[in-house]
This record gives sequence, structure tokens and C-alpha cells, in this order.
Amino acid sequence: MIDIIALRRDLHEHPELGFTEFRTATKVVQMLTELGYRVTYGKDAIDDTSRRGLPKPEVLEDAYQRAIHEGADPAIVQQMRGGFTAVVAELQGEQEGPTTAFRFDMDALPIRESKSDKHIPQAGQFRSSHEGIMHACAHDGHTAIGLALAERLSDRKFGGKIRLLFQPAEEGVRGAYAMVKNGMLEQVDRLFCIHLGTGVPSGHVRGASAGFLATTKLEAHFTGVSSHAGATPEEGRNALLGASTALLNIHALPRFSTADTRINVGILEGGTGANIIPEHARMVIETRSTSEETNRELERRVRQIIEHSASMHELSSTVEVIGGAVPIRCDMELAELAVQQTEGIAGFTCAEAISDGASLGSEDASYMIRRVQEQGGKATYMIIGSELPAPHHHPEFDLDEAVLAPAVELLERLARTLL
Amino acid sequence: MIDIIALRRDLHEHPELGFTEFRTATKVVQMLTELGYRVTYGKDAIDDTSRRGLPKPEVLEDAYQRAIHEGADPAIVQQMRGGFTAVVAELQGEQEGPTTAFRFDMDALPIRESKSDKHIPQAGQFRSSHEGIMHACAHDGHTAIGLALAERLSDRKFGGKIRLLFQPAEEGVRGAYAMVKNGMLEQVDRLFCIHLGTGVPSGHVRGASAGFLATTKLEAHFTGVSSHAGATPEEGRNALLGASTALLNIHALPRFSTADTRINVGILEGGTGANIIPEHARMVIETRSTSEETNRELERRVRQIIEHSASMHELSSTVEVIGGAVPIRCDMELAELAVQQTEGIAGFTCAEAISDGASLGSEDASYMIRRVQEQGGKATYMIIGSELPAPHHHPEFDLDEAVLAPAVELLERLARTLL
Amino acid sequence: MIDIIALRRDLHEHPELGFTEFRTATKVVQMLTELGYRVTYGKDAIDDTSRRGLPKPEVLEDAYQRAIHEGADPAIVQQMRGGFTAVVAELQGEQEGPTTAFRFDMDALPIRESKSDKHIPQAGQFRSSHEGIMHACAHDGHTAIGLALAERLSDRKFGGKIRLLFQPAEEGVRGAYAMVKNGMLEQVDRLFCIHLGTGVPSGHVRGASAGFLATTKLEAHFTGVSSHAGATPEEGRNALLGASTALLNIHALPRFSTADTRINVGILEGGTGANIIPEHARMVIETRSTSEETNRELERRVRQIIEHSASMHELSSTVEVIGGAVPIRCDMELAELAVQQTEGIAGFTCAEAISDGASLGSEDASYMIRRVQEQGGKATYMIIGSELPAPHHHPEFDLDEAVLAPAVELLERLARTLL
Amino acid sequence: MIDIIALRRDLHEHPELGFTEFRTATKVVQMLTELGYRVTYGKDAIDDTSRRGLPKPEVLEDAYQRAIHEGADPAIVQQMRGGFTAVVAELQGEQEGPTTAFRFDMDALPIRESKSDKHIPQAGQFRSSHEGIMHACAHDGHTAIGLALAERLSDRKFGGKIRLLFQPAEEGVRGAYAMVKNGMLEQVDRLFCIHLGTGVPSGHVRGASAGFLATTKLEAHFTGVSSHAGATPEEGRNALLGASTALLNIHALPRFSTADTRINVGILEGGTGANIIPEHARMVIETRSTSEETNRELERRVRQIIEHSASMHELSSTVEVIGGAVPIRCDMELAELAVQQTEGIAGFTCAEAISDGASLGSEDASYMIRRVQEQGGKATYMIIGSELPAPHHHPEFDLDEAVLAPAVELLERLARTLL
Repeated sequence: MIDIIALRRDLHEHPELGFTEFRTATKVVQMLTELGYRVTYGKDAIDDTSRRGLPKPEVLEDAYQRAIHEGADPAIVQQMRGGFTAVVAELQGEQEGPTTAFRFDMDALPIRESKSDKHIPQAGQFRSSHEGIMHACAHDGHTAIGLALAERLSDRKFGGKIRLLFQPAEEGVRGAYAMVKNGMLEQVDRLFCIHLGTGVPSGHVRGASAGFLATTKLEAHFTGVSSHAGATPEEGRNALLGASTALLNIHALPRFSTADTRINVGILEGGTGANIIPEHARMVIETRSTSEETNRELERRVRQIIEHSASMHELSSTVEVIGGAVPIRCDMELAELAVQQTEGIAGFTCAEAISDGASLGSEDASYMIRRVQEQGGKATYMIIGSELPAPHHHPEFDLDEAVLAPAVELLERLARTLL
Repeated sequence: MIDIIALRRDLHEHPELGFTEFRTATKVVQMLTELGYRVTYGKDAIDDTSRRGLPKPEVLEDAYQRAIHEGADPAIVQQMRGGFTAVVAELQGEQEGPTTAFRFDMDALPIRESKSDKHIPQAGQFRSSHEGIMHACAHDGHTAIGLALAERLSDRKFGGKIRLLFQPAEEGVRGAYAMVKNGMLEQVDRLFCIHLGTGVPSGHVRGASAGFLATTKLEAHFTGVSSHAGATPEEGRNALLGASTALLNIHALPRFSTADTRINVGILEGGTGANIIPEHARMVIETRSTSEETNRELERRVRQIIEHSASMHELSSTVEVIGGAVPIRCDMELAELAVQQTEGIAGFTCAEAISDGASLGSEDASYMIRRVQEQGGKATYMIIGSELPAPHHHPEFDLDEAVLAPAVELLERLARTLL
Repeated sequence: MIDIIALRRDLHEHPELGFTEFRTATKVVQMLTELGYRVTYGKDAIDDTSRRGLPKPEVLEDAYQRAIHEGADPAIVQQMRGGFTAVVAELQGEQEGPTTAFRFDMDALPIRESKSDKHIPQAGQFRSSHEGIMHACAHDGHTAIGLALAERLSDRKFGGKIRLLFQPAEEGVRGAYAMVKNGMLEQVDRLFCIHLGTGVPSGHVRGASAGFLATTKLEAHFTGVSSHAGATPEEGRNALLGASTALLNIHALPRFSTADTRINVGILEGGTGANIIPEHARMVIETRSTSEETNRELERRVRQIIEHSASMHELSSTVEVIGGAVPIRCDMELAELAVQQTEGIAGFTCAEAISDGASLGSEDASYMIRRVQEQGGKATYMIIGSELPAPHHHPEFDLDEAVLAPAVELLERLARTLL
Repeated sequence: MIDIIALRRDLHEHPELGFTEFRTATKVVQMLTELGYRVTYGKDAIDDTSRRGLPKPEVLEDAYQRAIHEGADPAIVQQMRGGFTAVVAELQGEQEGPTTAFRFDMDALPIRESKSDKHIPQAGQFRSSHEGIMHACAHDGHTAIGLALAERLSDRKFGGKIRLLFQPAEEGVRGAYAMVKNGMLEQVDRLFCIHLGTGVPSGHVRGASAGFLATTKLEAHFTGVSSHAGATPEEGRNALLGASTALLNIHALPRFSTADTRINVGILEGGTGANIIPEHARMVIETRSTSEETNRELERRVRQIIEHSASMHELSSTVEVIGGAVPIRCDMELAELAVQQTEGIAGFTCAEAISDGASLGSEDASYMIRRVQEQGGKATYMIIGSELPAPHHHPEFDLDEAVLAPAVELLERLARTLL
């Protein structure tokens, strides 16, 4: 039987960034295959061109080689080469019935993990061995829960089908969209997504979540002509003039009366030296709104500002979507079912269907939830509470391993319960 | 015989802005006609659509009515209605010979003339009777010189033809271009342009001038959509955001290694109230350069910035040329001739062909000079010195009336001298 | 007895802008005095330095002279000279009791009234005789209602005291604050403010209003140094560079998570000519928020941007508050009382205490309401419906005169009812 | 005897960036010491705090370790640890006489050298072994010439003293100033600076150079407060808003009538992720002018813009000078002496004292030249022509090794000639 804590620690020690989860996903494929699941992965599980914010080829390749070096099964991992790290597993139960899906995200963050002795992964010797990368958002726990759940359900004692979705690149809201595009959510009747922590204490369960914002992440490039700033400044086409103009005007876009909005130019970088007219600049922008339509309108206006800030200085420009999410509207039937099913599970002391004003920002599970609902299915985004010594995305973040087993039990009950 | 001082004082008392010189030009037509000149004026003397920075119709009409009210001959002035205030007069001399032209500008400035008792026009009771308009650049003197010269030459004792050009709207470099476009400089062999003052003392003559810059004056309009700033800001298209972006970026255009440049957004105005998204903004821009080609390139880039600053915020924009000039290269033969001819004229104590570094900024006589030179003719821009109690364009500006008569005599000699 | 329709038409024909309501306020003083009220006006009714957005002295003086010319009682109006056009009247009822106040605003708008034959004031020959000024927000109706109410209550058949507040300069949210500062709301137990129209149909009454935003209106001046743009650009200090920088950065201030916000630079104007570095620029800015505190923080940040945008270019700057309001929280007891009292009044067919999402933007009655509530009193802002042929602030705006009489009756009942 | 070509190739193969010339300078110290010169280096040769644009400590340390690894004499190089890589050597001639100095710069550029077979260093197997660093400005040649000259003069057959200055960090105009500040130019009577190439063909010598601009290189940092862009944008203080505002306004500084100017923001970078309000931004700026005073004024105004662009958004800012130069005025006596001395040197076919309009941009040898002239000495900046397969600072740049020997001979003659 899977030792869920050992499994989570192994994953924690080998964190992988979005679309480079080669070792993690290979392990997921291996275990699920052994458990008898029909496993889909590589290009079969995720749409190539819909992947957002894909790392550069050399980054993908380095991570791929590292995974092989760390023992990833070559026959499996080579199907994932180039960033195809999604895994979907399906199992038919004993009786007929609906398809119930569970979604787990696998990626880590570009954070240098704490070496403090108070930090349990350091003391327990499972701190990240990939310096500068860290599971600081509990996805190691999510993946471990998913695999433990798979083992429990391998007895096939349930009605209908179980589908387990292991998603790459949730950070930056990048990976879910491409799995949906590849059909991985078709024919799903019920979808449960989970997150550990998020400010909810250990022992508590929240059956649904509200307040997620629609968001788009964009990367823009401005390209001009470099020139010597002293000798021939007029021959240059200054990419930083265009980019700075765009930055100011993007922030100056109007507030909307239709919905709450947010806008941020999070990164701007350009130029090579004091005496060279800057030829190139790169910009990363984020829009958000409580309304998907308003967010689309904001994105449209951001693109327009970029295009014309560039043209104004005779620069060319490109804009690419590198991430995105839509708002989430949970089905309260599933939330209430989850609350009921917590009853009697050791470790759970409190459950509520939903809480006012709760928000995690944005989540690309939203695309999966929407796709299920479009087909007439139900979906929810649940929170499994966990004490946290430090906030999400912090070098001393850690999860309470005591919540892993109850979480698995709750999901198992949900899988075996036909609504 | 014309009393040049009385004439200048009459003109000074009735100053008229560019393209509204209805009273002035009518008087010029009357006097030249009486002297026997063949006089061309109205639409025959200036090209309609080439007039730059034409005032609004109601402004033209008000000035027209004022001129009639002040006694302008209705038969003449009605030919000028709508701003056709150029006058060209020609006289054939006794012998055959080349055509010698003289150019005089007639317009005044939007300046409120001083009421100080030290200000001679006030003390002498010929201060402007058109409140807020003032001859503060000596064009009253230029016009008076031109008419006195016409009288002297009406004896026809010279070879060739004399052509006298009375130009509207020199301020803002607006009127000369349209006279050239209408053919008023065709067949001119020698062209003398003059200016009084400009820092040169009374008694001095400078035969040529250097340092004039190419310039373009542009007026841009940005038009968006107004909206209530509290209720529906997103429905507005903010003209001031576009205009402010253009303003900053126009100033941020590069220095040129090809030539010295200048750039200025001299006026920006837009918006109607605190709580309304501004629908409209107007901007006046000036480019200059020692090189005409560089000035053209600057103008091109200014237009591009305006267009895209507008498009960025979904505004429409227009750009119109409201003034312009090219550099001047005087023919030194004429300059030296002028220096020689000063000899013996009472009132002139010093003459030089040219002076280093002298510049008046920009002058649209430059279009006339260029047209003459293009045809193989010669041209110069002369300075007749005058003590000034205050700088040009100042409410206490005044000219030294003692220089008027010597100036007329010098021009007369030049007219009678065949090079 | 007052003919309320004739009175309203007289006021409509003689509209006066904020702080220049000399004729209107004089008439108010006269009528109230004749009715036996104790009348306070001029400097006794409004605090000099708290008046916001006061017109220039010459504007105040011209309007003052016009009022005298139109027959305003010189003895009264001279107390208002310089813009002290507030009037407060008090009457003691037969019995002891609380003080009930009613507030009416008197000012008009800088709008040219329609001359269309379909426009009733035109057809009825009471169109504005002050060209370019118009009662386009129903304040003529408000003032007429106030005076008719005063007449009804002059029988003193009520308990407590009645206080009638006739406020100048509501447009631009400028006048109420200075009346509060002068103590005009002290000892008020109940305050009723009314507005006609606002999208509510004739016959309807709304007892309270919601959704008013806190707002601040600011006027900023940037002062630099002018210089010839061709000859010595470096000697200039360019006010428009500073102002445009401020404009972009003000719009770029962040969205707030604490409350909804709005921001607008509604006017920017500066510069004098193409060839002059702009010495001066003027800017009008508005901030708004559902939260007064957030609005204050926005104002603080706007001021900071202006100061440093100016200093960046070695300009001086000033910022003055020219208007402001706070949010309104109506006391529902008064709203419900108003609903009850409509019963049986001919002309009223429908009444409700409040309506979801209703908002008029901002209102400076908010300062009066707050002051009353701070003292433990109750206050509300009521809407008396009126059909409108065109929206508020439109050249064809007009009110339904049939609603005036029922409005007076409702206020009379409220005045005579002790809660 | 030194094989100057082999020496230059050794230096070419081991290029070092400014202030990290540990291997190069150690070799210089060794060779000069062996030749009998009195050698000053380390902290004795350069002022600590006057060094501009010093690399970060870890960069200095890495380069230091690399030099040791490559065989630099530990006893010498440890005196240079931390970036004290200047070397000054002096030799007393047989007779008394003036002090003649020669200046050579030693640093390379952050350029990846070409691997093309047509590139001679590649074909000849002396391409840079320090990947990403390259001698692409001929300083390898300069240093080799300096050492070969030292060998020739070690016979002491000259009058007066010879002083050889080996300068670090000429790229970015960073190192000379600190050598001057440490007194290394005191008591110098004649100073010869040389540069190879610069567009002058092989065989040509130019005795003096004109057109160098005053320049200042600045590095600015903007520091604010990061915050989650979705959850609490108002708690952030956005460094990129401040920096972009500074960038636009720096470029928008006026043209000067006093002198030609240049301005460039060459680098801007800030922010960490799409969803984080940027906390930090770094900017590199360059000002230039034909006039040192105008350049100082430009620098003053740049600093002011940075300070207030930061304060506007409640950011802190710092500005540091990371490079600079002043204009150069060569003494024509030395230039003409150089022209004379080329006579008869094999390899030189043409010599001229100076050429119109020649400019290399900016050079910090200017501080040395000025210091010599301030003491009454003479100085010049000479060009030794060299064919170049590609421009300076290009990955395929290479010098014509045939010009090295004639250059040494010319300098030797100048050293032995007392003016």
C-alpha cells in the first residue's frame, strides 16, 4: 500500500516547474498503469499549441535530461519530451454509472527553499534537491492524494467511471486549458478539484469556493533597431520608449462600471548598454476581472495599446497569451455532498459548503469546471484545510501531512457515492 | 507726397491679425492703383487652399465687418472677404530689364498694447484701437516703407519691372507659401525682403541674413467619446490620455546627428469638466531644424506619434499644417549691392553684408526666396536696424521712425540699379 | 398665495451659476422675510474660506451687477456681494418640539438652453434670458417648492422649529460644505433633502437614496518659465511636460481592493503658441470612491503625483479643492415616514422607501446629512419623480410642473408630523 | 625580445572585463618589473572610491579566482583583489628632462567572439577562451604595444622620465578618473594616448583627434513595495511606473542652444512576475554633450527627473555615476611632432595632424589629458590606423597585426625626442 507521506516527501524533494514535471508525471504514469488504469499521457493528454507560457526549448531539455538522470523510465518520459507532462487515467467500475473526475496539479515554483532547521523538510531531509525550485503551494500533497486515491479505487467497487487528471503548470494558470482543448474533460459528469491550505485550518473542509477572477497573462515583445546613442541616435528605433509608453497607458486604462478589474505590468526589461539605443524590450502583463467579458475587453484594450505604442516609434510588436483563467461557479449540490461525506472521517472536525468572500485569486481548473458544466455536468472546487507555518509561495511554506489521509478518504467516499 | 510717419501711425492704430488685414490691404490696393500700378489682389493674389492656419470663418467675418465699419472701400474689400488679403502690384519701367521684387508683410500680433505714458504710441495717441491686437513686430513700418517706395518709383525711371508684394500672415509663417503657390513670384529676377529692428541698431544695414531654420507648425485634434466619469468611465474614449501620451513622446523623439533640431508642443487643451471623460483635445506643435530634410523627417515622426497615440485609445486624429518655412540662403551679390548703395544715405552710418550667427528664427519669406532662386534669380533678406525700447512681440515694442525714410531711399536705389 | 408655476418660470428665466445666485437669493430673502421668518444670509449664512470652486472676482462682480440691473433689492443683495448667496430661514411653531430642516439648491448650469419649439420654456416664453446659463437640473423647481412650503408653514401650526436651507453652488458639489462650516446645520433633528426627476417617473416618490460616492474635485496649476522654443529651449521650464506626466500617472494609480474607485482628469489646458515653451497649465481632476477613506487616499496620491510631476521639470504647482462630497446613508425611519405621508396626496401614485442600486453620482447635501447625523439627528435624501423630455444637464431638459404642488404638500405634511 | 604578435594573441585569448584584468595586469607588472621599471599597482595605482561602475563583489572574486587558476602570480595578483587592476611604471632616463607618459587600456568587452573560420583568431587558434568576453576594441593590441615599448626603452637612452600607464576599464569610461584621482598623472609633461583602428586605414597615423563628447553614465535604482496585483494592488508601490515615467521624461528633456546634446536610457529592467506589483527597477542612462557644462546641466536634470518620478509613486531612488568623460582638446605641437616622427618608419604611408569631424564618441583618457594640461603639460590622443574586417565591438572585429611594430617604433621615437 502506498505510504502517502513518503510519497509526498519524495515529490517534495524533486520539485519540477510547469511543463517540466518529467520525473513526477513519469512516476504517476508508472503507478497508475500498475494499478490497472488506462493511462493517457504525452501528446495524447494535452494539446500542443494550446499550452501557455511554455518554457524555452533549452529549459525543457535540461529538465528532461535531469529527470532521466534521476531515474525516470526512459520509455515513458520520452513521450513527454518537449513539455507534454499531462497524465489522465481512467478506470471502469463494476456497475454502469456516471463519470466522476478528480483533478490534481503537479508543478512547483521558482523559489529557493528555506534551509532553516525549523523548516520540517530541511530537518526531515526532504528539502528540495533542485536548488531554486520548491513545492511551495502544496501540489506535492495534491499529487500524493491523487495517487493514494487511485490505489483505493483500484478495487473497482464503484458505479460508473473514475477519471483522474494530473495537470502540469497550474502556476501561472497555464496547463489546464490545453488539457481541455485535447478533450480530457469530455463526458465528465462530476468533477472535484481540491486545494490544500489557502488559509483554512487543519480539520476543516470547504465544499466549494467563490471569488475566483477571470485573468489573462500576456507576454509582449517590442523590437526596434539599435544604434549608437552618440553617433546616430536618429537611426535607432527605441524599444524602451515604446514599452514605457505602453506600460503607463496600460495602467491608465479606465476603471469599469461593469465589473471590478485589476491590471498589472509585472515585468519590463530591455536594452543592452548605456550607449546603445535599445532594440528590444519584453513585458509581462496581467489583467483580471470578476467578469470574464470585462476581462476580455481589458485584454483587447491592452493589446491595442501595445500595438500602437510600438507603431508610434516604428517598432514591431508581438503579444502572446501565456496564461489565463475564467471565473468559477461551483455546483452547490457537490459542495453539500462533500460536507455530508466528511461525517465520521477521523481528522475532520468542521465542514461548510462555502464561505463568504473567499478567493484564491485565479485558477485554471476553471476551464475544466466550465467544460464539465457546459456538458450538463456538475463541478466544484474544494478546500481541504491545513495549518501552514508560512503563506503559500513562501520559502518556509509547508503543509500539515496529517491532513493527507483524511483527504484521500473523503475523495474515496465521493467517488463511491452516486449523487 | 506720402507722409510715411503719418501712414505708419495710421497702420499702427489699426492693426489686423494674419489673413484679416482687410483695412490695411484695401488701403494698399487703393494707393497703388492711384499711383498707376497694375494691382492684383483677392483670390488672384493668393492660393485659397494653400493658406495655412486660416482663422475660423466667424473670426474672418468679424474682422471684415470691422474693416467696412472703419471705412474700407467696399468694392475692394469684398474681393478679400474670407481672408484673401494679399496684394501684388507691378509697374513697367521706361526701359526693358529684369523684374525686381520687394516683399512687405502687413499683419499684427494678438498682444494687448501697453498704455504706459512712456510708450510713444500711447503718448502720441496712435496706440492700437483694436484692443488685444498690436503691431509689435514692425510690419506697420514695413508696409509704410512699401507704399512710400511705390510712390517714388511711380515715375517709372528704371529699367525692367518692379513688383511689390504685400503679404498677409507672416506671424506663424503662414501667408507667403500660398502667394508662391499662386504664381506671385514667377519671373522675378531679384527679390529684396526687409525687416526692421531684430537687434540691429538704428543707422545700421545688414545686406543678408543667416541662420534661419526650417520649421513646420502643426495643429492636431484628438477626438474620442465623452462619458460620465463616475457612472460609465469604460464607455469613454479619453482624448487627453491620447494627447498627453503624444506630447511626451513627441518631446522624446531623438536628437539627430544630421542637423540641429528643435521640437515643441506649444499648446494643449482638452476636456470640459471634472466629471466628464474628455472627448476632444487640441495640440499645436512646432518642429525646426537647420536642415529642411531633417525637419521633414521630424514632422513625419511627429505625425506618426499623434496617429498612434490616438489609435491606442481608440480616438480619431487629424493633423494639419498651419505654418512653415524653409532655411534661407541669401545671394551675397545682392547683399553687397545693398551695402554699396547705403553710401551717402543720411541716417545710415554702418553697413555690412552679413553677420555671423545672426538668426531670427524662421521666416516664410524663405519660400519666396527659394522660388526666385529656383528660377535662376537672386534674393536676399536684409535688416534695416532700429533702436527698440522693448523686444519684438512685447507690449512696449516700438520702432524708431527715423529709420523709415532712409530705408525707402535704399530700396529706391536698389530698384533703380541694375546689377 | 404663491403661484408656484409662475414662480418656477421666473426662476427658470433668470438662471444663475453657483455662488452668483444674487437675484434668486435676494428674492428668497425678500419672500421669507415677508412671511415672518427669521432670515440669515450673506456672510452670516456661509463660511467665506470654505466655499469651494468660487468663480473669479470679475465673474462674481458681473453677475452681481446683472442682478441689480434686473431689479434685485440693493439693500439685500449687497450683503451677498462676492458670492455669499446662501439663505437660511427659521420659524418657531406653536408648540415646542424638534427642529426640522429642508434643503433646496438654487444654482443653474453653464448650458445654452434649447430654442426648439418643442422645448416648453421656449414655447412658453420663459427660456433663459441669461444666454449660456440654464436651469437644466431642476433647481428652479426645488427653490420654488421651498418658497411655497415656507408660505404654507407660515401659519406656525406645527411643533418645534422649521429651518429652510437655500444652498448655492450644488453643481460641482461646492456650496453645502461652507454652510455646514458656518453652523447652519447645528441643532437640526430631522433633515429632508429632495431632488426632482433623476429617472423616477412623475407620480412616484422615493423616500431615500443610496449609492452616492465620496468625491473630491481638485484644480491644479503648473507654473514654469516660458522661453523661445527655437532660440533657447533649455531656458524654459515646460508646464505641459509636467502636466501631461501628471495626467498619465494620475490615471495609472492602482485599483483598490478596499473599495470601488474612479479617477478622471477632466480638463487640461496650457501653453500660448507653437514657438513658446509653455509656462502654465491648468488641470481639473476628480476622484471618487464608495469609501470616503479610500477617496481620501486617492486624493493624497493625486496630490503627490502633481507635486512631483511639477518638481521633476522644476515647475511650481498648486492644488486646490474646488468641490467634494461624502457618501450618504439615509435614515430609513424618515424614508418610511415619507412613504406613509404620500398617501392620499393627489398626484402621487406610487411610493417606495428605497430602490436597489440607485445612484445620482455625488451630492454635497451629504455634508449636511452627515452633520445632522453626527448630532444624533435623522436625515434622508428623497426623490420626487418627474417625467423628463431629456436627461439632466441637457439643453432640452425640462421638469413636469404638475409634480410641484404634490411635492409641496408632501413636505408640508412631513413638517407638521412629529416622528 | 618580446614577440609582440604572440603577446597580443595571448592577451586576445584571455580577455578580461573592466576592473577584472587580473591576469593581464599581473603579466604587465611582471614584465615591467623584470625590465627594471619602478612599478606601482593595486591600491597604490588607483583610488578605491573613485572607480566607477565597479562590478559586484562576486563577479570580481570569480574573475580573480580564474586568473589564479590560469597562472597569475599570486603574490602580485592578491594586491589587485577586489578590482585594483591599474599599473603604472616609471623609468629614469640617462639625462635629466621632462616626464613623458604613454597610456594603454587593457580591458575587453562582454561580447561572444565569432567562431567563423574566416575570423583569424578562430582560424589561428587564439579565439577567446573566456566565453562571452572578447577583445573587440583592440585593447589587446594597445597593451602589447605598451609592453614592447617598455622593452625598447629599458636601455634608458632618453632624457627625463618615462611613465607608462596601463589603465583598467576604459569600456564604459570608468577607470581613468580613479587613476587621476590617485595622482598617477602628476608631474607629467607630455602625454601620448593611442587607439588602433577607428576607421583609419593601415599605414595611416593621425596625430590628434577631435570631437570627443563629454559624457556621464548613470545607474539608477527605484525601490518600492511589492504586493499581490489581484488581492491588494493599492498596497504596492510600483517601481516600474516610476521608472517608465522617468524614462519618457529623461528623453523629453529639451534640446540645448548652448551645445549639441545626446541622451539615452540604455537599459531598464524591473519586476518579477505577472501577478506582483514590481518592487524594484534598474535603469542605465547616458548623457553627452559637446560642452562639459551642458553635460553637467543635463545630468542635473536627469537626476531631478529620477528623484521625482520615484517620489511621485512613493518609491525611493538612488543614482550613481558609473562612467564619465570630458571633451578632449589635443595639443597640436605633439600631434605635429608625431606626424614628423612617422617619416621613414616602414609600414607608415600617410600621416596627418588632425582630421575634420573625427570622433570616437567619448574617452576617459580625457581626464588624464586634462590633468596634464592643467599642470601646464601637453597631451594628445593619436590614432594608429588598422584595417578592420568588422567594426569595433563586433563579434568579428580583429586588428591588423602588421601595424603593431610600426606603432611601437613611433612611440619609441616620441619617447626619445625632447620637444
